[in-house]
Amino acid sequence: MQHGLIAMERLGLSTDLYELTMAAAFHDAGIADRYATFDLAIRDLPPERGFLVAAGLEQALAYLRDFRFWPQALDYLERTGHFRQQFLDYLGALRFTGSVDAIPEGHVYFPPGPLLRIRAPIIEAQIIETYLLTTITYQTLIASKAARVVLAAGNSTVVDFSPRRDHGPQAGLLCARAAFIGGCVGTSNVLANDMFGIPMFGTMAHSFVMFYRDELEAFRAFSRSYPGDPTLLIDTYDTVEGARKALQLMPELAERGHRLAAVRLDSGDMLELSKQVREVLDAGGAEDTQIFASGNLDEHKIRRLLQGGAPIDGFGVGTELGTSGDAPSLNSTYKLVTCADAQGAEVPVIKLATSKVTLPGSKQIWRRRDASSCMTGDTIGLVGEELEGNPLLVPVMRDGKPLAPAPELSAIREHARAEIAALPTGVAELDDHATYPVQVSPRLQALVQELHRR
Amino acid sequence: MQHGLIAMERLGLSTDLYELTMAAAFHDAGIADRYATFDLAIRDLPPERGFLVAAGLEQALAYLRDFRFWPQALDYLERTGHFRQQFLDYLGALRFTGSVDAIPEGHVYFPPGPLLRIRAPIIEAQIIETYLLTTITYQTLIASKAARVVLAAGNSTVVDFSPRRDHGPQAGLLCARAAFIGGCVGTSNVLANDMFGIPMFGTMAHSFVMFYRDELEAFRAFSRSYPGDPTLLIDTYDTVEGARKALQLMPELAERGHRLAAVRLDSGDMLELSKQVREVLDAGGAEDTQIFASGNLDEHKIRRLLQGGAPIDGFGVGTELGTSGDAPSLNSTYKLVTCADAQGAEVPVIKLATSKVTLPGSKQIWRRRDASSCMTGDTIGLVGEELEGNPLLVPVMRDGKPLAPAPELSAIREHARAEIAALPTGVAELDDHATYPVQVSPRLQALVQELHRR
Repeated sequence: MQHGLIAMERLGLSTDLYELTMAAAFHDAGIADRYATFDLAIRDLPPERGFLVAAGLEQALAYLRDFRFWPQALDYLERTGHFRQQFLDYLGALRFTGSVDAIPEGHVYFPPGPLLRIRAPIIEAQIIETYLLTTITYQTLIASKAARVVLAAGNSTVVDFSPRRDHGPQAGLLCARAAFIGGCVGTSNVLANDMFGIPMFGTMAHSFVMFYRDELEAFRAFSRSYPGDPTLLIDTYDTVEGARKALQLMPELAERGHRLAAVRLDSGDMLELSKQVREVLDAGGAEDTQIFASGNLDEHKIRRLLQGGAPIDGFGVGTELGTSGDAPSLNSTYKLVTCADAQGAEVPVIKLATSKVTLPGSKQIWRRRDASSCMTGDTIGLVGEELEGNPLLVPVMRDGKPLAPAPELSAIREHARAEIAALPTGVAELDDHATYPVQVSPRLQALVQELHRR
Repeated sequence: MQHGLIAMERLGLSTDLYELTMAAAFHDAGIADRYATFDLAIRDLPPERGFLVAAGLEQALAYLRDFRFWPQALDYLERTGHFRQQFLDYLGALRFTGSVDAIPEGHVYFPPGPLLRIRAPIIEAQIIETYLLTTITYQTLIASKAARVVLAAGNSTVVDFSPRRDHGPQAGLLCARAAFIGGCVGTSNVLANDMFGIPMFGTMAHSFVMFYRDELEAFRAFSRSYPGDPTLLIDTYDTVEGARKALQLMPELAERGHRLAAVRLDSGDMLELSKQVREVLDAGGAEDTQIFASGNLDEHKIRRLLQGGAPIDGFGVGTELGTSGDAPSLNSTYKLVTCADAQGAEVPVIKLATSKVTLPGSKQIWRRRDASSCMTGDTIGLVGEELEGNPLLVPVMRDGKPLAPAPELSAIREHARAEIAALPTGVAELDDHATYPVQVSPRLQALVQELHRR
């Protein structure tokens, strides 16, 4: 296991220690089966985000469905000496039997209302916290960043080029999925194509050209072996000269029934170089050969390039996309909002200390739209209220079982695209975005005040 | 596989598509077995880093040792239609047979010299790029961030509390490992204890206290179930009042042969609250009960707290540690530096386009120290040179086999601690750090100039 791979049999151990010691305490006190409700929510938006795109639910539900402690995990827990045998026997039989309501993947989401609402016996609802948070938070982070990059790229496409800079191989895989939801056309990650069916794209590396030393020879060797229309990397020595060499290859490609799909620039003054390369390509009869750019790009650089008239058709974005460089985390929380008393009655609860006040009770978010379906505002209220708009959280799991197969990724991506197009003016701006109106219902406000008074 | 788990059988697919299409081209051209050398290096330091701590080598070597394309990966690759059967047959038999020299884990490292040097037939050396980069880059990023946080904490301890905010479950696991190397005393991540033997720590969540509603009852239930000396979270309602309630539990704990290990603060004005809580604890006879703090901490906040006299004995650091919040990526590269010509002679190569000039040739880094073992500077030179200082890269793999078992993590951690203590004055400062002197040997400079001239 030196790879840092997490085996299915150890999935239950991918958690914070306190989840297990609290579970033991609930068990020992005989209250493990009292029902509770938790909200998984994002507390606030990072400075440069006007909206978030919900992602990661499929992995979260798969985790809950398959959640269990396998014998080898129980053996390990026994060896730690932290847990009594009676509790370990109980853990061995434990499954997630609760309910989940959630905002589906691809919906836009605004803090601080619930993104997921989990209702289950307290021990189950608590023990899943860590895994659920990391799964939902990272994919939502990346889908939201990808949406910005894709917006900046306008009619040009964006490909996830991040695997080498993501926080480990699994982050690379989850990033590819979330970036696709956020609007990327695909990824360079082969595993993401295998596991999630995400379209994959690839070009060639500088090392390939350097290894051949002769650039034209390198282009020729790569193209001969490549099964389709190749994209050639032209900036290893001199970008404009590289474009000319790529042109020289066109007759050979045509003989084999192929064309030069694109050339890639990875360094230098991309605005200037892309214009020069476009001229060279057009003059050489390669008007339909695209220009693809990569190299430390983000949404701001892409916008500047396109505003400057750079004739770039596609962008490969790595580090800034896969780490959400300007905001590498979201302020996600998992908060108890109702719990059953000794008589089994579920009552709303609140955490009062300092500034981190939570919204109590089992909640829903209603979204209003105008006549042209443009979003106009959200209201966070209590389940059971009848508020204007459409409720965003829908039932996705009951009795520990997913209610439906996960939607197709391409459908989620299309939905996200439509949702982003329906944002109010200014909310999707890259800088100085408008604030989307989110309000709290009078009944929920009254409940907060009432719990404060007690 | 909806968990986003990467199965051993799919390890070879966790890569960029271009690694495979280039491999196919090398194979088709009949030059796959020509030797080449690549440097894995970090191009430069993030603004707030005076040094980096090397980490991730154990996982990198395990990957190289186990590298292969399993039948199910080959089946998938066949289905993509990208590759010829002859190449897939070749891939099925491909193993990594090369050499790796590397700076061992726990050494401090300064860009831009090689962190790893890989020499192998070009197809092998190229195809491993993506996985090696993500593995080494993320752990080095986190070990380096952890070192800063640990330095800021001085005599107080630091625990990795990041699993919920890391970029997915595997990032959480790798983070725990790297943070331990960087000086953390342990992690909240159970899986990291199981897989890597890293000490684990845990307290309790606000939800636990809220679920019981009565804080004292919650403390009692938790302590009864907890196998050792508990740490109680005292800020759910009122921190100072929470400290008093924790005190009330001491007689019961003593009866069972336990004591109150610590109280945890997770919100509010920690400087003020920690002083008040210390007074309450001392006045109540709990002089040896420690104060543990968490909640959006980073190295700067920790230093301010301790400089202000906060009596805090330990810190749990999550988001900022696990995502390296101020610098969530390192500018890592994997560059071809020598390759064999048609006669098999290995020659140094260089990439010239624009500003991204690389250092050619098979290189070594020599580190000089003064009489008291304090580091005084590094020189990047060519293998075969005799330069002042000790060479940093050592042989770790030959013929695809690790030369020794991976060192114990605790030994790596101790080594890192000693290395950081031997840094020149100012290099380890949190702000406005001094620049460590790194120079390039005259022979290497001459080689760069010679290759430029050609």
